[in-house]
Amino acid sequence: MNSQELYKSLLQNELFLDKAHDDVTTRLLGLQAGRRCRATILAKEHGVFFGKLVLEALAFETLESRNDGDSIQKGEVVASFQTTIGEALTKERSLLNLVTHLSGVASATRKFVDAVRPFPTKILATRKTLPGLREFQLQAVQAGGGLVHRRSLSDGILIKDNHIQMGGIEGLLKKSNESRSPLHRVEIEVQNFEQLEEALKFGADVIMLDNFDLTGVAEGVKRIREHNDGRTKVEVSGNVALENAHAIAELGVDYISVGSITHSVKTLNMSLDLALVP
Amino acid sequence: MNSQELYKSLLQNELFLDKAHDDVTTRLLGLQAGRRCRATILAKEHGVFFGKLVLEALAFETLESRNDGDSIQKGEVVASFQTTIGEALTKERSLLNLVTHLSGVASATRKFVDAVRPFPTKILATRKTLPGLREFQLQAVQAGGGLVHRRSLSDGILIKDNHIQMGGIEGLLKKSNESRSPLHRVEIEVQNFEQLEEALKFGADVIMLDNFDLTGVAEGVKRIREHNDGRTKVEVSGNVALENAHAIAELGVDYISVGSITHSVKTLNMSLDLALVP
Amino acid sequence: MNSQELYKSLLQNELFLDKAHDDVTTRLLGLQAGRRCRATILAKEHGVFFGKLVLEALAFETLESRNDGDSIQKGEVVASFQTTIGEALTKERSLLNLVTHLSGVASATRKFVDAVRPFPTKILATRKTLPGLREFQLQAVQAGGGLVHRRSLSDGILIKDNHIQMGGIEGLLKKSNESRSPLHRVEIEVQNFEQLEEALKFGADVIMLDNFDLTGVAEGVKRIREHNDGRTKVEVSGNVALENAHAIAELGVDYISVGSITHSVKTLNMSLDLALVP
Amino acid sequence: MNSQELYKSLLQNELFLDKAHDDVTTRLLGLQAGRRCRATILAKEHGVFFGKLVLEALAFETLESRNDGDSIQKGEVVASFQTTIGEALTKERSLLNLVTHLSGVASATRKFVDAVRPFPTKILATRKTLPGLREFQLQAVQAGGGLVHRRSLSDGILIKDNHIQMGGIEGLLKKSNESRSPLHRVEIEVQNFEQLEEALKFGADVIMLDNFDLTGVAEGVKRIREHNDGRTKVEVSGNVALENAHAIAELGVDYISVGSITHSVKTLNMSLDLALVP
Amino acid sequence: MNSQELYKSLLQNELFLDKAHDDVTTRLLGLQAGRRCRATILAKEHGVFFGKLVLEALAFETLESRNDGDSIQKGEVVASFQTTIGEALTKERSLLNLVTHLSGVASATRKFVDAVRPFPTKILATRKTLPGLREFQLQAVQAGGGLVHRRSLSDGILIKDNHIQMGGIEGLLKKSNESRSPLHRVEIEVQNFEQLEEALKFGADVIMLDNFDLTGVAEGVKRIREHNDGRTKVEVSGNVALENAHAIAELGVDYISVGSITHSVKTLNMSLDLALVP
Amino acid sequence: MNSQELYKSLLQNELFLDKAHDDVTTRLLGLQAGRRCRATILAKEHGVFFGKLVLEALAFETLESRNDGDSIQKGEVVASFQTTIGEALTKERSLLNLVTHLSGVASATRKFVDAVRPFPTKILATRKTLPGLREFQLQAVQAGGGLVHRRSLSDGILIKDNHIQMGGIEGLLKKSNESRSPLHRVEIEVQNFEQLEEALKFGADVIMLDNFDLTGVAEGVKRIREHNDGRTKVEVSGNVALENAHAIAELGVDYISVGSITHSVKTLNMSLDLALVP
Repeated sequence: MNSQELYKSLLQNELFLDKAHDDVTTRLLGLQAGRRCRATILAKEHGVFFGKLVLEALAFETLESRNDGDSIQKGEVVASFQTTIGEALTKERSLLNLVTHLSGVASATRKFVDAVRPFPTKILATRKTLPGLREFQLQAVQAGGGLVHRRSLSDGILIKDNHIQMGGIEGLLKKSNESRSPLHRVEIEVQNFEQLEEALKFGADVIMLDNFDLTGVAEGVKRIREHNDGRTKVEVSGNVALENAHAIAELGVDYISVGSITHSVKTLNMSLDLALVP
Repeated sequence: MNSQELYKSLLQNELFLDKAHDDVTTRLLGLQAGRRCRATILAKEHGVFFGKLVLEALAFETLESRNDGDSIQKGEVVASFQTTIGEALTKERSLLNLVTHLSGVASATRKFVDAVRPFPTKILATRKTLPGLREFQLQAVQAGGGLVHRRSLSDGILIKDNHIQMGGIEGLLKKSNESRSPLHRVEIEVQNFEQLEEALKFGADVIMLDNFDLTGVAEGVKRIREHNDGRTKVEVSGNVALENAHAIAELGVDYISVGSITHSVKTLNMSLDLALVP
Repeated sequence: MNSQELYKSLLQNELFLDKAHDDVTTRLLGLQAGRRCRATILAKEHGVFFGKLVLEALAFETLESRNDGDSIQKGEVVASFQTTIGEALTKERSLLNLVTHLSGVASATRKFVDAVRPFPTKILATRKTLPGLREFQLQAVQAGGGLVHRRSLSDGILIKDNHIQMGGIEGLLKKSNESRSPLHRVEIEVQNFEQLEEALKFGADVIMLDNFDLTGVAEGVKRIREHNDGRTKVEVSGNVALENAHAIAELGVDYISVGSITHSVKTLNMSLDLALVP
Repeated sequence: MNSQELYKSLLQNELFLDKAHDDVTTRLLGLQAGRRCRATILAKEHGVFFGKLVLEALAFETLESRNDGDSIQKGEVVASFQTTIGEALTKERSLLNLVTHLSGVASATRKFVDAVRPFPTKILATRKTLPGLREFQLQAVQAGGGLVHRRSLSDGILIKDNHIQMGGIEGLLKKSNESRSPLHRVEIEVQNFEQLEEALKFGADVIMLDNFDLTGVAEGVKRIREHNDGRTKVEVSGNVALENAHAIAELGVDYISVGSITHSVKTLNMSLDLALVP
Repeated sequence: MNSQELYKSLLQNELFLDKAHDDVTTRLLGLQAGRRCRATILAKEHGVFFGKLVLEALAFETLESRNDGDSIQKGEVVASFQTTIGEALTKERSLLNLVTHLSGVASATRKFVDAVRPFPTKILATRKTLPGLREFQLQAVQAGGGLVHRRSLSDGILIKDNHIQMGGIEGLLKKSNESRSPLHRVEIEVQNFEQLEEALKFGADVIMLDNFDLTGVAEGVKRIREHNDGRTKVEVSGNVALENAHAIAELGVDYISVGSITHSVKTLNMSLDLALVP
Repeated sequence: MNSQELYKSLLQNELFLDKAHDDVTTRLLGLQAGRRCRATILAKEHGVFFGKLVLEALAFETLESRNDGDSIQKGEVVASFQTTIGEALTKERSLLNLVTHLSGVASATRKFVDAVRPFPTKILATRKTLPGLREFQLQAVQAGGGLVHRRSLSDGILIKDNHIQMGGIEGLLKKSNESRSPLHRVEIEVQNFEQLEEALKFGADVIMLDNFDLTGVAEGVKRIREHNDGRTKVEVSGNVALENAHAIAELGVDYISVGSITHSVKTLNMSLDLALVP
């Protein structure tokens, strides 16, 4: 299953649950439902578009669409395609629900990406995604300019507070180096400088400064950089908002992870208009 | 499948996609992962809880939980249960992703419900839900005090602008009365007073005033009430926000539908803490 | 998923369970199985056809088919299409099992619809459908001229005997009006005149007279019509057969619900013939 | 998956499609829905019961049930169990739809089995089953005393008219003997005595006399028995009804296959009653 | 679902689990991934090909492929097709994993088939297949020249040691004859001559000599042949290897069943090469 | 879904396809099938056990089992549990098919792990797994002492020959560093020393020497170690067999990847014996 097939599968399921096969209103149109129309998707606010893969999945005819990741303006036609009146009315809601949500994800991501310019800091999505939507949200994050942290629990070792409490930093980092896949780095989340020092001592590839204030982040970055000339990467998480992202990036961190771009998404408003094809 | 089984199915799928069976970090704990702990879910902001059905679905032992729909306070323990360290760490993210999202839905709904007091106006969820999550979001809406409009396209006739454009108000309302289920009312969305008059003439059970300003709503309500002593219900949609919901309700409308409580949800922040059981 | 995709999904599953990929008899034909043929479906008795959606779902070439809902005669060719000998032999049984069953549903429905002429009474399907087949049976009912009562337990409030026993007519009707969707009417099933009077007093949109005899139905209709000039609808269920449907309709009821058109269906007999295409 | 798990899976799916998690009527009962009750299933006509496996699949408490295949009388309690009012009301329809249908299958089968007494002739189910229900219907047939012919297209070679038309009796029977599984017999369907003679000449394990009248069946049985002292089995299909089954069996055939016991099933009527548990 | 659709379904699932939609390496190619190429599958050892059905399932363009069951040589191009660089890289592993495994099955089978020449003995696959792959492996066995024994537990009666221990040979064989489908033979597995004599006495269609040595097989065949002039078939299982298959066949047995051709399969090595299409 | 639930799901599906609900042989036992027995799994050759998770998934009573990864001896009882005769007979084949295959994987892995002692070289599983079985095979590999390379295409960047041909080493490595997840290393496969030098120049975390002979590996390791004091890891793949694994490890490589431990697995032979429980 490639991306297109994955979107198709999500939408087919959504249309089934929305009972697209039993649309009691559209059925009233009778033969009119079979007339061909051009459907136009209009942006009703500024943002970043993510919908081309979705539209391609539904295989509409003569599809024209902005690319995923394109900046779009309020009032702009972002996609159009031909179909029948019946298909358009029945699929409108399922289609827009997905496109406006994913465009919302891409737009929120882009705002953070813009906020950390001109620094090389990367914005990361977390595993704080909505049930069933992670694959899709992560593609939208990437279209918005963000990177993915971990796709799943098997996608790299990330030692967190609760793990440390049970296994200790030294023990866990040593075991990590024994058992990890050759393609996985090891990351550890630290809450304070004591933990940071221990992490540096036993060797992690990435250190996450969790819920540090700006002064703390500055100090953390300094200690990590001094330790081994830039090989250990620094990630900041917790208390990150659009307002302070620039300031954090300015401190020289490699990564900032932001949960809200996937867990608290405001849709990017769009509408679907229909016009009969002569 | 009852509610509990539905939540179980959603979570099982989510845990599968999160590769809970292959949590490379928790595996580092070895035998420690089997130790029993008490997990505590803590609210980190005020709002409305929706998580009991979710927790019951995972069948944790000695579960204590606030009820779905309860108001909760920042700092409050909203649920706790026993499990093993390994299970807790592996399932934490999937569990919180769902509970914090649905609590977010319930909280947003409650705000609108509170806003329209003391009027009898009902807050309605729309079909603007997130892919795969409609059933769950609608339960959270109801826990927050809202009602459901249509669960799917087969759940009652709602004639919208595009339908009118193709079939005409008169034709569609007449056909509606012929073909509808005995348990379904017929609703029509109108954009202006001309359409409103035609809808009244040919008889709809519910009339939706779409994107009317406050003055328009007032006039619309007046005309509908005059027409048949309250039997036709009035719904308002479009341009609804927490700020103007009270004013709309004050005009005497029966229903206000709000898309944002399901399509643009801010999670209600919570954390999961673990303590070993002696 | 639109209707066609739903039928395709049902048939694909059926063909999988019938091991169409491992048809040990057709395999004996070797290369002959690849020869092209025209398959013809012949009606072996009079009735109403429901198979076009099914055949379209399998995407046969040069399909010609009567429309769903058409009256057909014994001996008539109701559909024909091109395919290979192998495909035809392998799919014949799964295809006919579905088409003859659904045509049986449509035919049984039509008989009831014809029986209540010239009265405006509507014939309703119930939730007494066969496991896994409800969506399909309800489409066949509609093709036969019937309407759908409730598609599922969420599709409108229907208060039955057991509910009344626990919650009382007054309490339940009041709660119904509080919690229902704006698009749902409220129906109550009554077993006697006492319940009928209470239902009228507290206001239901539809009243179902369950297992009343003809005299009882006449009296029930009279009381309901007197109560509010036709706004409350009357449904009759129980003890309905082709023999008494006309007499019931004559009494002025709005709806008659008939379980047997979905739960006790006699197939409409058809055969599939093959002819090599030169 | 054993039988019980298979029934559970069917019912879970059915309850999901019936939206058992969103039963808007039962929800009106509020806390009352949680009260415990004893549910009793009552037969409303004579027949053969098939429901124990179904009820066990739902794992109700203190289940008492007649055995699958038991004869039951009108008015008899055939099963009872404890549950909550809410569960009972929500699951009633899905449960009864399955039990009354399968009991209908078992009852129809038993009538044919009784009709062919005292002859050793066996009644066979065909592949003319309802989509998605074959496994279940075949179990009910066996509970009624019938046997299964083929479960699927891979379950033994059955050469029919269309095969013969393409491959010829001689060619197909020879190939059959080359390619069949050691556990499969070879059966051929013949329409006339010429085909019968050819089938005997090239050797089939079972010969199906299709649409022969009684005289034809008598002659067919005679020829087959003479050919090889009873080793070749005789099956009769087509034009079989309760009325002539005895006469056919009397002619000494080994098997009679009957499509109607699975494709045209009249439900065996039952009701579910509830009583609060003190 | 025909064969092709079954392979498609297996591969789609495999590609989903391999996260083909999120191939982080191929994504690096950017627009290059969209360039068209010709993919060539090369055999890296001698054997029997089984991959055409697999390749057809993926619907590649201008597919050229050896037939399933063809002998292929080391260095030979066994299939080629057009696609994009991105598709080819992403699907390569899933495709080759399936084709090289099934070609391994076909190749192992062919070796046994060749070993028993010139005797009429048939090589049988058993139910010792790999989870989820039985349907596919059995097709490859047949392409290699083997036959299928039982596809599932419902596919004919095979009485084994543990059954005999509980029910006795006499009792089980008698019951078998009562309850079996008309298309099923009855087979019994015997461990010694005493059991063999009892099996002959009560009549089985096929007798399996389990773990007999060559002398035992010879004696077993003699006794069975003497019993009823060849009607009872003889199968040998256990201790069968390429080395002794010829000697066993020479003793006149009808079937030899071999578990290793499905449970211990060495892949037939192949590689996929890409060349840009000008 | 944790590990146990994953195994349960695989086995349930397998039992469904094996028609465990319709075991026509075991059904002959009648009431005897309900008698309780103790089932014992016996190893019939030396190796490494992997079956405890499988057995736990089926939730047998009083289960005793060797641990996954334990060395077992020919003739040893590796697990035992209580169940009914019927359950045991019906599930025996599906259970053993899985346990003997996975034990085969674990055993083959262990042989490679033993071969590279006393060097710190790790044995890696590849993505050359069998369709549908990757998750399970990788757990068995780990029980045998091996590590996982990539679980899927999203699990780290591995630049192979075909990628290099299209994108060039320089370009791809640079892009990798831009777009990778913070938890992913970058690996590149090289075929010759020229590619190796370029890979070192532009910086990969792991370099795979593909199909190098022993001299080539020695030279490769030397150059990589000289380049940056051990930070870049070395993996060897291609032409690896039990015979040369020790010699390769001796050259100081970090990882050896072996496809055959998952793609060409010989089952570890076991049998299931039953004894009635008094």
